[in-house]
Amino acid sequence: MEAIHVRAAISDYDVIVGHNVLTRFSDFVAAFDPGGELVVVTDDEVDRHFQEFPQLPRSAQRVVLRHGEHLKTFAEAESLISQLAEWNVGRDGMIVGLGGGGIGDLAGFVASIYLRGIPWAVVPTTLLSQVDSAVGGKVAVNLPVGKNLVGAFYPPRLVLCDIALLSELPDKEFISGLGEVIKTALIGDPQLFEMLEDQLDNVLSRDPKVLENMVTACAKVKADVVSRDERDRGIRAMLNFGHTIAHALEGAEGFEALPHGIAVLCGILVTLPLSKEFCGLSDAIINRIQQLIQRLPIDNPESLPPFEAVKTFIAHDKKTRKNEAQWVLLKDIGVPISNVTVPMELVQTAYSTLRGNQ
Amino acid sequence: MEAIHVRAAISDYDVIVGHNVLTRFSDFVAAFDPGGELVVVTDDEVDRHFQEFPQLPRSAQRVVLRHGEHLKTFAEAESLISQLAEWNVGRDGMIVGLGGGGIGDLAGFVASIYLRGIPWAVVPTTLLSQVDSAVGGKVAVNLPVGKNLVGAFYPPRLVLCDIALLSELPDKEFISGLGEVIKTALIGDPQLFEMLEDQLDNVLSRDPKVLENMVTACAKVKADVVSRDERDRGIRAMLNFGHTIAHALEGAEGFEALPHGIAVLCGILVTLPLSKEFCGLSDAIINRIQQLIQRLPIDNPESLPPFEAVKTFIAHDKKTRKNEAQWVLLKDIGVPISNVTVPMELVQTAYSTLRGNQ
Repeated sequence: MEAIHVRAAISDYDVIVGHNVLTRFSDFVAAFDPGGELVVVTDDEVDRHFQEFPQLPRSAQRVVLRHGEHLKTFAEAESLISQLAEWNVGRDGMIVGLGGGGIGDLAGFVASIYLRGIPWAVVPTTLLSQVDSAVGGKVAVNLPVGKNLVGAFYPPRLVLCDIALLSELPDKEFISGLGEVIKTALIGDPQLFEMLEDQLDNVLSRDPKVLENMVTACAKVKADVVSRDERDRGIRAMLNFGHTIAHALEGAEGFEALPHGIAVLCGILVTLPLSKEFCGLSDAIINRIQQLIQRLPIDNPESLPPFEAVKTFIAHDKKTRKNEAQWVLLKDIGVPISNVTVPMELVQTAYSTLRGNQ
Repeated sequence: MEAIHVRAAISDYDVIVGHNVLTRFSDFVAAFDPGGELVVVTDDEVDRHFQEFPQLPRSAQRVVLRHGEHLKTFAEAESLISQLAEWNVGRDGMIVGLGGGGIGDLAGFVASIYLRGIPWAVVPTTLLSQVDSAVGGKVAVNLPVGKNLVGAFYPPRLVLCDIALLSELPDKEFISGLGEVIKTALIGDPQLFEMLEDQLDNVLSRDPKVLENMVTACAKVKADVVSRDERDRGIRAMLNFGHTIAHALEGAEGFEALPHGIAVLCGILVTLPLSKEFCGLSDAIINRIQQLIQRLPIDNPESLPPFEAVKTFIAHDKKTRKNEAQWVLLKDIGVPISNVTVPMELVQTAYSTLRGNQ
């Protein structure tokens, strides 16, 4: 077990990574528990595995939402808040988000605005959320007019990553999580990248010890970045590596259901020739990255959409500055370069090459 | 003109108090203006006075809402956010709340969650908002199930209190604002209290110099309190002086329209005998406070509601702890005592005495 410290303006917190740490939930929560009503927010898929959320410090209310992207909406937030008010949850209350990234986003956003903010903890149940979304305090929900339009930087008081949960994850979700793991290694941890090269088979067979080391390494990279730039004003941009294309793919019609981590891997592959062109990334490194990604048992996705279909989404990326997408490229493993402007023709070439090789 | 500095976790800011400072709006905003779209949020009543918001740093969008309490709702926030998204307002955008407390609350809440927070400035146009709600970064909106249920601690980047605006304020609103001025003097500034005793006539005739000193003094008290306790974990509770009864009166059927500052004055009067009983407030001070309040030209309100009608609202006050209201009482002018538990019988006696004397 390891506790990774994260600094945040409102309140620092720990990311606990370990096997079966969930059984000690009440010990970890005791440190900041204000003693009022405790509300566990989860979805029906997760709920089937957690009929009895272990070791709650006291009786708790439970909100079980229908799983899916819709749960991460402003409307769902309003309905959850009305429920909290009905239960008379006060400032001494606490919310626990138990689930994947969507649940974490909804629970955290509601915690950030209910009574101007009450404490919350998050128990990410997917690899994707353990290695990425649960750490860093970024929460957001969707409006009909756009995704992640409203949200907050609102740190949880605890992130509890139980490695045991990963053993039950469907393959598709597990592999998707590896997309963010590879991204994390590339921007911040060359040793993790080597470990993935050496031990990918053990990762894929979900060796608990290997997974614990892997999730711990990812949490450390993310904790370091968000501690130095909680509100996304500078270096936090590097976490967006691979995401300019990923978000565009997820925006393109018919590709909403592309697993996020797989979209990120596509995004990374597109940035490799751009990284060579603009940052001098070596062919040797490019080969290593491509080879690692090719070793993943990814179901052949539908053919990628034509460039025209993703181009508009690149231009409308939230991270644009003066209407030009700000790319994160790679100079070397562990050396990301943020805020690079790339001519659209070169993006098109890189994208079309990837699409052709599919 | 005076600039009062406020410390806040995300970003410090200044409260500028002065005559005609609004004409220099663009100078003050330049210091933090990120250069993107500027959106002025106001209501139709304020808009009539500000057909041309002076000296905007550049072209701006304007949202004019129908005035009233309904504009401070979650639904209105959602609609405003959709509008911002439609205008493609980015992280380099800025919101300006131009109006009373409701506009400030809505503008600030939307600024706090849109794209996880964009900069905002507030130009309070009422005395109530200049001396109280605009300073301190507390923003909130109502849900159908309850008032101020959702919100944030989200500091503006600028508070611009133009004394010139106060000359046009309807008497009723001006007197209501004096309720919060008297509260502020009582919890934090004996000199301000003496000034009010000495110069109440000049205050009521709206002598600009006297008003400037008065608003400046209030802003200093509030700035000091919120700088030391931004997130309402300790001394900020003293700002609630007079508010336990005020919120209960505003909650009672038929009294929703009671001006906030008048409700606060009623609340202060009820706390005086309690302050004597629990904190040893002297009869001499009680007399001075009662006399000052009696000199205000307050329209005789409807008879206060019976105690039974306000009692339940006292028990459900947001500041309750273990279901007991936490009172702020007074030991002396400038010496508030927070978190006092008062037996309901004594509250009833004090309230009934005030009601009988009406």
